[in-house]
Amino acid sequence: MSTSTPNRVDVWFEFASTYSYPAIMRVEAEAQARGVPLIWRPFLLGPVFAAQGLADSPFKTNEIKGAYMWRDIERICAADDLPFQRPSRFPRGSLLSARIAFAFSDARWIGAFVRRVYTANFADDADVDQPEVIVALLDELDLDSQDIVTAATTPDTKLGLLAQTEAAIASGIFGAPTFAVGPELFWGNDRLEAALAWATGPKP
Amino acid sequence: MSTSTPNRVDVWFEFASTYSYPAIMRVEAEAQARGVPLIWRPFLLGPVFAAQGLADSPFKTNEIKGAYMWRDIERICAADDLPFQRPSRFPRGSLLSARIAFAFSDARWIGAFVRRVYTANFADDADVDQPEVIVALLDELDLDSQDIVTAATTPDTKLGLLAQTEAAIASGIFGAPTFAVGPELFWGNDRLEAALAWATGPKP
Repeated sequence: MSTSTPNRVDVWFEFASTYSYPAIMRVEAEAQARGVPLIWRPFLLGPVFAAQGLADSPFKTNEIKGAYMWRDIERICAADDLPFQRPSRFPRGSLLSARIAFAFSDARWIGAFVRRVYTANFADDADVDQPEVIVALLDELDLDSQDIVTAATTPDTKLGLLAQTEAAIASGIFGAPTFAVGPELFWGNDRLEAALAWATGPKP
Repeated sequence: MSTSTPNRVDVWFEFASTYSYPAIMRVEAEAQARGVPLIWRPFLLGPVFAAQGLADSPFKTNEIKGAYMWRDIERICAADDLPFQRPSRFPRGSLLSARIAFAFSDARWIGAFVRRVYTANFADDADVDQPEVIVALLDELDLDSQDIVTAATTPDTKLGLLAQTEAAIASGIFGAPTFAVGPELFWGNDRLEAALAWATGPKP
């Protein structure tokens, strides 16, 4: 079935995910350039990995793959002109950021906030698992950090993020970033273009 | 260090590997278009997975990822105009084909043979683990199948393929296809363009 208006792309991401970094830094601009609406869908990889029987990130449990990934990310960031510094801790906890992104997924500042957390983790090697670091980033963006943190830590927000993570698992998502166009999943930074093409173009 | 002549690309592949199918079907044409020399490097994924502590293909041990992979391959083949039929057995043994490709990696017909085995497995659902199927493919290509099979099953060839597989593991290869430009590894069908760019262009 073809439609005249593009389908939206749901952007499923987790702040600790390495390949989400280059993807998130460009997704909003790439989607806008094609007129594709975008929905931010933060989720938690921990429960997603657990659903696959994995106790940790595959990049931690599989050292050979992990070594490749760091070099690959370095090359991708260089090609995209993105600053990159390997985080001194990986994966870095990011629960507060994920809750904020969940609670404010349609705020006008959500894209800027999400990108700022990624650069803090992957370019500045900042301790984004520390609430005061996130508060400072919100302040830097001229946002009301106190109100935002309060709204992001209500029981509703906490449960909502868990429910969104369960929805990810139920839809077949197993890693991040994943771009979803209806039931079609596109996994990985390198699938962003295919997802946007799927959202706009005729389907095979 | 930049050179005026392109570096060569070593194409590491395994006949049972799904993502190797679209990669192998286009790698020779893409490399030739950029003037990049190519070396065919067949290897066996079994020992490579074992070195990572995996008993089988990740697409078999992780059903969620496996389900995604089949849909993804279907979409990629459609986009590349490649015929595709999910093999009724996966992964399909392909030891004889790998030995032939190892023993004749610089024959003028190697590209045509390799592509024919992939289409037999992934488009025709042929039993490429049966020697008579491979013999028929060689005959179809107007090659001396008897001589080729004899040369491909000597102890030297058998040990040579195992040694090449050990060399893959030693160089950090963990999956197929992998494109190597010197020590730089590019894993996956979606990294072919990056590997060719690395072989030809200035390095970051």
